[in-house]
Amino acid sequence: MANDKKLVEEITSMDEDFAQWYTDIVKKADLIDYSSVKGCMIIRPYGYAIWENIQHLLDTRFKELGHENVCMPMFIPESLLNKEKDHVAGFAPEVAWVTHGGSEKLQERLCVRPTSETLFCEHYANIIKSYRDLPKLYNQWCSVVRWEKTTRPFLRSREFLWQEGHTMHATAEEAEAETVQMLNVYADFYEKDLCIPVIKGQKTDKEKFAGAKATYTVEALMHDGKALQGGTSHNFGSGFAEAFGIQYLDKDNKLKPCYQTSWGVSTRMIGAIIMAHGDNNGLVLPPAIAPIQVMVIPVQMHKEGVVEKATEIQQRLNKTFRCKIDTSDKSPGWKFSEYEMKGVPLRLEMGPRDIENNQCVLVRRDNRQKYFVSLDELETKVAELLDELAQGLYNDAMARREAMTETPEDLDAFIESAKEKPGFKKAMWCGDLECEMKLKELADVSSRCIPFDEEPVGDKCIVCGKPAHKLVYWGKAY
Amino acid sequence: MANDKKLVEEITSMDEDFAQWYTDIVKKADLIDYSSVKGCMIIRPYGYAIWENIQHLLDTRFKELGHENVCMPMFIPESLLNKEKDHVAGFAPEVAWVTHGGSEKLQERLCVRPTSETLFCEHYANIIKSYRDLPKLYNQWCSVVRWEKTTRPFLRSREFLWQEGHTMHATAEEAEAETVQMLNVYADFYEKDLCIPVIKGQKTDKEKFAGAKATYTVEALMHDGKALQGGTSHNFGSGFAEAFGIQYLDKDNKLKPCYQTSWGVSTRMIGAIIMAHGDNNGLVLPPAIAPIQVMVIPVQMHKEGVVEKATEIQQRLNKTFRCKIDTSDKSPGWKFSEYEMKGVPLRLEMGPRDIENNQCVLVRRDNRQKYFVSLDELETKVAELLDELAQGLYNDAMARREAMTETPEDLDAFIESAKEKPGFKKAMWCGDLECEMKLKELADVSSRCIPFDEEPVGDKCIVCGKPAHKLVYWGKAY
Repeated sequence: MANDKKLVEEITSMDEDFAQWYTDIVKKADLIDYSSVKGCMIIRPYGYAIWENIQHLLDTRFKELGHENVCMPMFIPESLLNKEKDHVAGFAPEVAWVTHGGSEKLQERLCVRPTSETLFCEHYANIIKSYRDLPKLYNQWCSVVRWEKTTRPFLRSREFLWQEGHTMHATAEEAEAETVQMLNVYADFYEKDLCIPVIKGQKTDKEKFAGAKATYTVEALMHDGKALQGGTSHNFGSGFAEAFGIQYLDKDNKLKPCYQTSWGVSTRMIGAIIMAHGDNNGLVLPPAIAPIQVMVIPVQMHKEGVVEKATEIQQRLNKTFRCKIDTSDKSPGWKFSEYEMKGVPLRLEMGPRDIENNQCVLVRRDNRQKYFVSLDELETKVAELLDELAQGLYNDAMARREAMTETPEDLDAFIESAKEKPGFKKAMWCGDLECEMKLKELADVSSRCIPFDEEPVGDKCIVCGKPAHKLVYWGKAY
Repeated sequence: MANDKKLVEEITSMDEDFAQWYTDIVKKADLIDYSSVKGCMIIRPYGYAIWENIQHLLDTRFKELGHENVCMPMFIPESLLNKEKDHVAGFAPEVAWVTHGGSEKLQERLCVRPTSETLFCEHYANIIKSYRDLPKLYNQWCSVVRWEKTTRPFLRSREFLWQEGHTMHATAEEAEAETVQMLNVYADFYEKDLCIPVIKGQKTDKEKFAGAKATYTVEALMHDGKALQGGTSHNFGSGFAEAFGIQYLDKDNKLKPCYQTSWGVSTRMIGAIIMAHGDNNGLVLPPAIAPIQVMVIPVQMHKEGVVEKATEIQQRLNKTFRCKIDTSDKSPGWKFSEYEMKGVPLRLEMGPRDIENNQCVLVRRDNRQKYFVSLDELETKVAELLDELAQGLYNDAMARREAMTETPEDLDAFIESAKEKPGFKKAMWCGDLECEMKLKELADVSSRCIPFDEEPVGDKCIVCGKPAHKLVYWGKAY
């Protein structure tokens, strides 16, 4: 087990230096690599396979709800970006500009899309004429670029992968229903597939998307007590539609404006998975998105029949689960720690003794519990353990979040708590930007969201003391 | 049937103006739309669904052969692009340059990837150390940018979608085997799934990829007799690897260079499908990649039970095929011509009389043949007709190619034939660039490929008369 120990020692402990722990994992679990393209990441096969699984699960949900995928250009002419004033103000400072094609200077410079509202609106203005053309439920999987100064793999990168849904509706009510529906899709995906509990709510005006009427969000708490915005869904009302002249002829023969939404999640989700479930041995992956759900490791490989039997079991399991086998000449100890690092949910060990007894050993990644399992009931047991592991991940994350959520009584207690203890702070807010800014200044927290369906924790603003009806989750955020 | 006729009349006939016919189809079959981003296209849901089907089928083949997907940055720093001299000479004149991030001028400008050999090489230099790390079989699905002056949807676009495989091997032999294997994957996909016969062969030095040692290609013939390069597979030898210092420590403890390949196909395939199978009524889609394989059109929808029964049949078929129903208030005639335009392989008509007789009518898109089919054997019959249609498309395309392939006896006959008749010309070539250029000048054709496994058609160069061992397919190309 010497090799095992050595590998483990190579990761910084998360209590010692959380940021370094994170960086160690993304590198050592082979999720990413750096390149000479500053601020951008190479997503390696193991990391990309996680993204492919996320894509597949979400895309299926989107399509079941009637959404269709499209592909817009990656460039936006400056004049098009300028068409909606709040939007351009929000994005222009952080876009990459293409100024030359080959050796020629372009007549108009193009930005690499930071998001595609303007492109979708221009297209919708072309294709929406009548009530028969509505709703339009489009989505796009692509990469976008935002010229960030400080970057971290998955969390804040100059280029990242995402999906952006852009929909157009006949009425404000339909647009609002879509905005809420897609937030619920994200919440459901986070909780069921990523095993990460989230708080659903609305962003304050200060934190909402550039150009949106309302932004809804799912907020998750990471291991270190920082919040992560997991996904957002925006209701644009008819603002963009009016700027772009998107109107439809209704049944009553009147021209009416369209109502618009957009919603997106990104490779940031992989950062959330790492920081919600990882431990000092590396990554811990929820089964739904794990590239390998079961890793078969033959023990005493030199003994006759071991590799053959283990391979047979791997092929059998691979019909139902994503199952691989490692028959390389490395030691079992090295392999154990390698696949712990990679967060493979279940390890299956099998040696000559196990074969004799028609059994194998299953080890859960999250709590390292061992199970001796008869080969006759292997599939059932694997499915059971994967479910239990998923439930366990969710419960642990939920317990951690609860332990890390406080409701300070007054401003002093809030400041003290924000200074001393990581996590969410719940407090009432009057709705004034000034009070929101003041909390940022005094306690270094931002408003995460005004949660849906939660009871108020008082009736006065924690900052100014005036009557307050809005409960807000506050926190330090990625 | 008035509506039907009207719709059909809206398409330019392919004999009258092939280019306009093509443009009509891409627009009227809802494959693409234009935007204010010059030279780039919007791929609409119906067009993108074709691409998703292509992706799925190819990705499955790639993965079965051990390839893994990754994601590289979309930018390449100028100094990195400059690292392999033939490569940069080939691509620098046609790349888009990013010069500013936000309001700041970049220290080094970045091009938007026209292809990613340099990025992959930089990464491979980082991760390949030992023979144990080989082979590396990576692929990436993404979009690339080439600043073309004249553009046409799918065929030549400033941004297009593609996949680029990039592999590294321990020996020259393995790299060659991979190059050939991937060309065969493309050929197989073209012939079996896209129903387009292709000629496999090698590009001349003039036509090969910038920086490659050898480029293999699959060439297809379009309806108008022009050739289309369907996909390419390149053997780079160790050229890039040496420029990038990619070496591995072999079992014999010696440092050795790696051998590299790359291979790609793009959304150009959709252009090939249109021009190989389309007719004057619109698109004709091979079943394997058709977003809708069977379109159910209820007839006399106002009659009791028709919509219900047709919907029941659609839901039943949708378990095995991609099947949709159109219950909109448009006339059956309008619907017939709409889904002919969209190239849906089979139309299923069903009216009260059919329901009474426990049958429906199936109509093949390619030859409009009608079949009265009992509902008891519907699945079998649909599968049969889809297979027959696929085989029919392939046979028609093959017959057309054969009719359009000539073997001129001498240079005069070649020039005459190239002027008078569209299609492939087969002729012997001595291997000199000069003769290749001369044919371009005299007959306005380029070399398409030196075919694998074909008998020579003579022993003298058609241009200079010197001894020649290379048979070449020549043609006008997209």
